Amino acid sequence: MNKVKGLIAATFAAYNVDGTIDLEAIPPYVEYLIGQGVSGVFVCGTNGEGPNLTVEERMEITEKYIASVAGRIRVFVHVGHSSITEAKRLAVHAQEHRADYISSVSAFYFKPTSVANLVDCMAEIAAAAPKLPFFYYHIPALTGIQIDMLAFLELAEEKIPNLAGIKYTAATIHEYQACLHYKSGKFDILFGYDELLLPALAVGAKGAIGSTYNYGAKLYAKVMDYFEEGKLDEAEKLHFHAVQMIQLLVKYGPIPTQRAIMKKIGLNLGIPRLPLAALSEDQEKNLYTDLANSDFLSHVASS
Amino acid sequence: MNKVKGLIAATFAAYNVDGTIDLEAIPPYVEYLIGQGVSGVFVCGTNGEGPNLTVEERMEITEKYIASVAGRIRVFVHVGHSSITEAKRLAVHAQEHRADYISSVSAFYFKPTSVANLVDCMAEIAAAAPKLPFFYYHIPALTGIQIDMLAFLELAEEKIPNLAGIKYTAATIHEYQACLHYKSGKFDILFGYDELLLPALAVGAKGAIGSTYNYGAKLYAKVMDYFEEGKLDEAEKLHFHAVQMIQLLVKYGPIPTQRAIMKKIGLNLGIPRLPLAALSEDQEKNLYTDLANSDFLSHVASS
Amino acid sequence: MNKVKGLIAATFAAYNVDGTIDLEAIPPYVEYLIGQGVSGVFVCGTNGEGPNLTVEERMEITEKYIASVAGRIRVFVHVGHSSITEAKRLAVHAQEHRADYISSVSAFYFKPTSVANLVDCMAEIAAAAPKLPFFYYHIPALTGIQIDMLAFLELAEEKIPNLAGIKYTAATIHEYQACLHYKSGKFDILFGYDELLLPALAVGAKGAIGSTYNYGAKLYAKVMDYFEEGKLDEAEKLHFHAVQMIQLLVKYGPIPTQRAIMKKIGLNLGIPRLPLAALSEDQEKNLYTDLANSDFLSHVASS
Amino acid sequence: MNKVKGLIAATFAAYNVDGTIDLEAIPPYVEYLIGQGVSGVFVCGTNGEGPNLTVEERMEITEKYIASVAGRIRVFVHVGHSSITEAKRLAVHAQEHRADYISSVSAFYFKPTSVANLVDCMAEIAAAAPKLPFFYYHIPALTGIQIDMLAFLELAEEKIPNLAGIKYTAATIHEYQACLHYKSGKFDILFGYDELLLPALAVGAKGAIGSTYNYGAKLYAKVMDYFEEGKLDEAEKLHFHAVQMIQLLVKYGPIPTQRAIMKKIGLNLGIPRLPLAALSEDQEKNLYTDLANSDFLSHVASS
Repeated sequence: MNKVKGLIAATFAAYNVDGTIDLEAIPPYVEYLIGQGVSGVFVCGTNGEGPNLTVEERMEITEKYIASVAGRIRVFVHVGHSSITEAKRLAVHAQEHRADYISSVSAFYFKPTSVANLVDCMAEIAAAAPKLPFFYYHIPALTGIQIDMLAFLELAEEKIPNLAGIKYTAATIHEYQACLHYKSGKFDILFGYDELLLPALAVGAKGAIGSTYNYGAKLYAKVMDYFEEGKLDEAEKLHFHAVQMIQLLVKYGPIPTQRAIMKKIGLNLGIPRLPLAALSEDQEKNLYTDLANSDFLSHVASS
Repeated sequence: MNKVKGLIAATFAAYNVDGTIDLEAIPPYVEYLIGQGVSGVFVCGTNGEGPNLTVEERMEITEKYIASVAGRIRVFVHVGHSSITEAKRLAVHAQEHRADYISSVSAFYFKPTSVANLVDCMAEIAAAAPKLPFFYYHIPALTGIQIDMLAFLELAEEKIPNLAGIKYTAATIHEYQACLHYKSGKFDILFGYDELLLPALAVGAKGAIGSTYNYGAKLYAKVMDYFEEGKLDEAEKLHFHAVQMIQLLVKYGPIPTQRAIMKKIGLNLGIPRLPLAALSEDQEKNLYTDLANSDFLSHVASS
Repeated sequence: MNKVKGLIAATFAAYNVDGTIDLEAIPPYVEYLIGQGVSGVFVCGTNGEGPNLTVEERMEITEKYIASVAGRIRVFVHVGHSSITEAKRLAVHAQEHRADYISSVSAFYFKPTSVANLVDCMAEIAAAAPKLPFFYYHIPALTGIQIDMLAFLELAEEKIPNLAGIKYTAATIHEYQACLHYKSGKFDILFGYDELLLPALAVGAKGAIGSTYNYGAKLYAKVMDYFEEGKLDEAEKLHFHAVQMIQLLVKYGPIPTQRAIMKKIGLNLGIPRLPLAALSEDQEKNLYTDLANSDFLSHVASS
Repeated sequence: MNKVKGLIAATFAAYNVDGTIDLEAIPPYVEYLIGQGVSGVFVCGTNGEGPNLTVEERMEITEKYIASVAGRIRVFVHVGHSSITEAKRLAVHAQEHRADYISSVSAFYFKPTSVANLVDCMAEIAAAAPKLPFFYYHIPALTGIQIDMLAFLELAEEKIPNLAGIKYTAATIHEYQACLHYKSGKFDILFGYDELLLPALAVGAKGAIGSTYNYGAKLYAKVMDYFEEGKLDEAEKLHFHAVQMIQLLVKYGPIPTQRAIMKKIGLNLGIPRLPLAALSEDQEKNLYTDLANSDFLSHVASS
């Protein structure tokens, strides 16, 4: 299987004023992203508020993305759910609608208690869409599942025939490196911690999925180019602009803040669902001032 | 509003051999529970694997319980979900089908970041079933939400007109006591940590919801009677039988172990859904030996 | 061995204005405590800032307490230290100076990784004072050591000949109850979570060690009397005064707040050592107002 | 001030058979390390079991290292202690004996509750050795102190005149990068997470302190050279040998395993103190087999 390269945008959910899903926001959003050079979209993940949506909403969003993308870039559909039964429905649907890949977080109310238990859970979901490559979505900060990913690969390799790899969202880059090396690079380990992209490049990352690639893809692509060309100082300096911007995200909360950035660049995606909330007017004003004072914005194109 | 008294069984999910929901298991289960003297059932909660089920399955189970109970005891419907939109659908359904109460855990993928945020989440759910009294289900060990419940009551009182109280599943009995005293006992604070029932009685608990009341209700009822009568030594000794039994649950995992106990007393509820698993044959055999050696079983009636 | 009964005050450190130890504060402090009816003092523990002191300071304080108490009540010397070598020096010293008991927390920089490892650590310390009964000081909220205390007793019983029991500072009263029952009450399990004293009485607690017994012993003694006499409502109501007071402690930090209370009743113990700090003037004023509005203070005698 | 460059070995404690400190092991150990090309030693830190030692032992070890090193490489003395009073004694001693730098972890029994509180603690220690540059030792996995290091620098800069920088032992390399950039690189931020050295180089690390530099310094130095020369693939491949070796350390426990490696290369340092323990004979045999099968050992010289 070909490896996934480049930057995948973990897209945000789009809502109408009444809180329902705004499907019409998706086509222009997709055009903007393609214009920014991303190589794919990751739909209904953390950033896309998958766990805040109904299964039916997730299906509609998935269909709209697949139609809007129309084969030009890759579509990852996140099917993770507290209920594996629901996750399987989403997997079946993604395969029927010809998504390129599916991905799932661990069950997160009842939590797997061992690597074998986690593999059993993921195997059940992956088997529901046997034609699609499957990525386990490792994000311990949100799920609380700290299982070693090298051990996961060793066991999952036997139990999940369509295992493609891992979306690896954790700061433990040494473990990430070990996963990249597993069986001479048999699996595709996509990096998911945007502010650590450059360190991950140093251990061999070629593809990444993240929220800041929604608007910052051009900057990160240049970081990757500099790194490839051995221009390490330039790569480091440019990457630091991203780190500084992400410090602002932490200040006000990552998803609300980034939705305000999307609005700033012309893509108003509405108010997120509880427990998430939009920035207050004051927070939004302060954010825009902070951003204007940063070097990051000069690398971001409006839609 | 009248307070809920006595013991509420947090019922287990029942599955057919093919993994679908076994609705026919519910009527005899209800009869058994009523025979044990419980004052209510708590449906589709943690123990009932609510987060492992689809919304449709939860609705079917709810309807079956309400029909089987037929007004003889109270029915709590747990509507908590990672998606508040889905939780609201479940709340609407519970009201339409005349459940007695609804209850919800906090959203648990995205987690509330403050007491105000938690109250906003619960207010949205409670407002979907305005005729039903609402209980917030506090279970920090599973949700990770450690918010102080006294602060919750103070704020929720203003924002949730149908707030009835809290299902309090935590060992912090001093906070539980403070909630009981809030505004001279305005709210109904049901205790949810079975192995701490006697300590909770000492600070004023009158009602409790828990998994071990599925089969141990008679023992606990006797503990409550002894306590009421001032027979403190007898209460302590009997309660200790429950503590010892619960140590066995921890050994093999609370839900799988208790499902094996239910099977032992004649209610075979099938295999739970992943990430939960049934006990292995060996574990089941060891459990039954351990139970046979304990004093607990003598207090448990077969169905 | 006779069991320890009643309330043991976990005494505070006393400092001069220049930050050195104020040994002269100890005799009047002891007289006050004896006047309040405590049955012992627990010296250089958490509350006494043992881990903030030098070994030499801890020895001086220990000697002064033993001399001041002069056999009238019991003296527990806490010898826990990040270095077991230092803990052993403190144990030897306590035995030489005829303390009644020693106690130790787990090592807390490097943390025991199993019950066997914890028992080995405690055995080494206990063996340094073989004539003194030894209490393991279980306080997972501070040490992070969550090891099951029943498993500890089973193993420690074989390895620590002078094991007397546990100072149990955790909310898991069911485990506490199981420890009380171990081998028909072979060990002395002293309860250490003051705001849960009444719930602990319900499962058989007879002795307790805590910080609030420094000034609140008379109130708690009355709670114990009511409980013994079967006056459960009176016990609950009075205990709730303690719970409410302790909510104030949490607001401003337990040790700084309680040192301000000690000052209020006439025992000025100076400024605690970093990372602890004294309350600000404003905080102290607010605390005194809050206390004046509570029912707790009416139960507290000045020195 | 000149920045510290290259690799600093965080040395292990050396014990005699009777458990006392083996001072005579230090001179040959130092010669070995100098032969490996390290630019300094970090004495009595985590790896050196500082928190397991008495203050007097720490002073003796410090003196022996300073004498053995005799100015050829730099000597960092770790003075962190649960008692800031003891840490100050160690700081005074280090200055008197002309250490090059001091460093301290946060107090770790009572834990700082804010960045200001942490800075106050470190300021008190640093002020006891005003002539020595001070490094805060950030190691949240052991101390539990998660305070943001950029906020620390901002405040510590004003309160600690002799602040030199941070020993940064955490996987959050984006925060590390932000600290390196603070005021155009005003402070020296030494990296402390050996298996992430290469990723840290990518964001500008020039100096590092760690345990695996005791025996692996030549391999890491080559990684640094490759990186400097833009030979990124070679750097990555070689660094991966270190990552694989460190996976073995995790398997058996980092300090015991590395002490067994030191023994293998001819430096027998004895049995560590509880709660640490030596590997069992079987574990040691398995470790040596695993190491023999790895590529790492070919880069390690015997003493």
